[in-house]
Amino acid sequence: MRIVVLAGGIGGARFLRGLKRAAPEAEITVVGNTGDDIFLFGLKVCPDLDTVMYTLGGGIDEERGWGRADETFRVKEELAAYEVEPTWFGLGDRDLATHIVRTQMLNAGYPLSAVTEALCHRWRPGVRLIPMTDDRVETHVVITDERGRRAIHFQEWWVRLRASVPAEAIVPIGVEEAKPAPGVLEAIAEADAVLLPPSNPVVSVGTILAVPGVREAVAAKTVVGVSPIIGGAPVRGMADACLAAIGVETSARAVAEHYGPELLDGWLVDEADAAVADEGIAGIAVRSRPLLMTDVGAAADIARAALELAGELR
Amino acid sequence: MRIVVLAGGIGGARFLRGLKRAAPEAEITVVGNTGDDIFLFGLKVCPDLDTVMYTLGGGIDEERGWGRADETFRVKEELAAYEVEPTWFGLGDRDLATHIVRTQMLNAGYPLSAVTEALCHRWRPGVRLIPMTDDRVETHVVITDERGRRAIHFQEWWVRLRASVPAEAIVPIGVEEAKPAPGVLEAIAEADAVLLPPSNPVVSVGTILAVPGVREAVAAKTVVGVSPIIGGAPVRGMADACLAAIGVETSARAVAEHYGPELLDGWLVDEADAAVADEGIAGIAVRSRPLLMTDVGAAADIARAALELAGELR
Repeated sequence: MRIVVLAGGIGGARFLRGLKRAAPEAEITVVGNTGDDIFLFGLKVCPDLDTVMYTLGGGIDEERGWGRADETFRVKEELAAYEVEPTWFGLGDRDLATHIVRTQMLNAGYPLSAVTEALCHRWRPGVRLIPMTDDRVETHVVITDERGRRAIHFQEWWVRLRASVPAEAIVPIGVEEAKPAPGVLEAIAEADAVLLPPSNPVVSVGTILAVPGVREAVAAKTVVGVSPIIGGAPVRGMADACLAAIGVETSARAVAEHYGPELLDGWLVDEADAAVADEGIAGIAVRSRPLLMTDVGAAADIARAALELAGELR
Repeated sequence: MRIVVLAGGIGGARFLRGLKRAAPEAEITVVGNTGDDIFLFGLKVCPDLDTVMYTLGGGIDEERGWGRADETFRVKEELAAYEVEPTWFGLGDRDLATHIVRTQMLNAGYPLSAVTEALCHRWRPGVRLIPMTDDRVETHVVITDERGRRAIHFQEWWVRLRASVPAEAIVPIGVEEAKPAPGVLEAIAEADAVLLPPSNPVVSVGTILAVPGVREAVAAKTVVGVSPIIGGAPVRGMADACLAAIGVETSARAVAEHYGPELLDGWLVDEADAAVADEGIAGIAVRSRPLLMTDVGAAADIARAALELAGELR
């Protein structure tokens, strides 16, 4: 069986760990979001790709959900001593080596997809991890603060401001000119199912779908999504702040309707949202079940349910 | 009083610490060797400049003589886990921040001299530290090993091979086209004395003197040097291997004669080499005294003796 997953960071990575356990024989291709990539101190940082790579490769900090286990922040402290900005990004020492290798390969002319493949030689995540595009896409957020109305990098809004300032717009700069990375459209075309993990529907899955050609390719397949919203609140992260920016209510139903029946065939909601399954959504098969990924077993159960629903709908 | 010092790494830095104590009111300009600079993992590393900056700024690892105090090597371990080369360079985590800031400023278009000044805002070395040139000069060493006759970077010969393979030639690539950094010739012209610390006469002081215009400017001044050779052996490091490459004997006399009376006015040798002072060297005033820089006080005594000799000769 061939499965494609459009993944953001922590939620996507944990879902994928469950999927690998649920379908150990499946050929899994992960199309990773790169809209939250950022250049820091001249180094290319790909938070979502790394979270997937570290989580599946056994190198993640389990508690934080991002970055390396047994991490230290000595370089970051020294950079702060030099008074260079930004100081708000959690750049760990072990993690930094990944960015150094990546940046050096990019500067040598390798595309991000080739670099990601090279990094995965070490991590052996057990999936094929492809960035959504080799082109530069950077999500910016329009805010108004004491300095006026301005656009800042998504990471600054997310990490420094903790999404505390309302996003007036979220703009994946460069996405219209971006081409899907080699292998992305092929993997989707060959997939038996495309799964949307409980990643951020705006800045993770939404950005991937905005790469020209991806939405159409995905819509042609059997697509099952897992709601990132449980009982009107994001399971993790600040997806509500992102949904508000695009005028979508923070509810399991609203997210499914935002994806829409032309894209989505099946939708898993939590038991807390059983009413959505009972009432139904036009054109989308909705099932309710426990959606908290409390451990790998729970994540595997969710992945299994998504695969079963995809099997029914295919 | 205005003093210019042509400095390499550890020996130069320790001499400078003594000089600052010996002449606290003096205006000291350090022209630093950059021939041993190297790009590692896309980062610009300037070992000699950093050794001077850290030593005078209180950040040096006293025992090793190079790199930062209280250092860790986590990034280096991770880079090794990615199997990227080289693995032989001692790149510390705290040290790495310096290279990251430097590289980012260089990539932004600042010349190395401006970058060095910016880094010194943090370290406040109490001297004006200028790289010998803003142009790229890289010392390479011609060796013959199982792979044949080839040129390798000085750092590879020095750090990886510990100078164990004979140097057939030592070539500061790019030096002929290099221009002295802004301020270098001006500082020398205005100096009351130019001091040559016990740095490597070939790959440190020799490289600085090879920058077009520097030798002539220095030769026009009162110049006093401190022998890096005591009793036929280098005090520290492997200067003998460098001297052999240029056909100069490893002795206090031979190094002074190599600099020559047209450059050198005074020469301090160790008591072990008192015979050199007794016999004399044509055109050079030679004095013998203890030259081991066992602590800052001893280094200050040597610096004081160098200044006194310069005063006599001026």
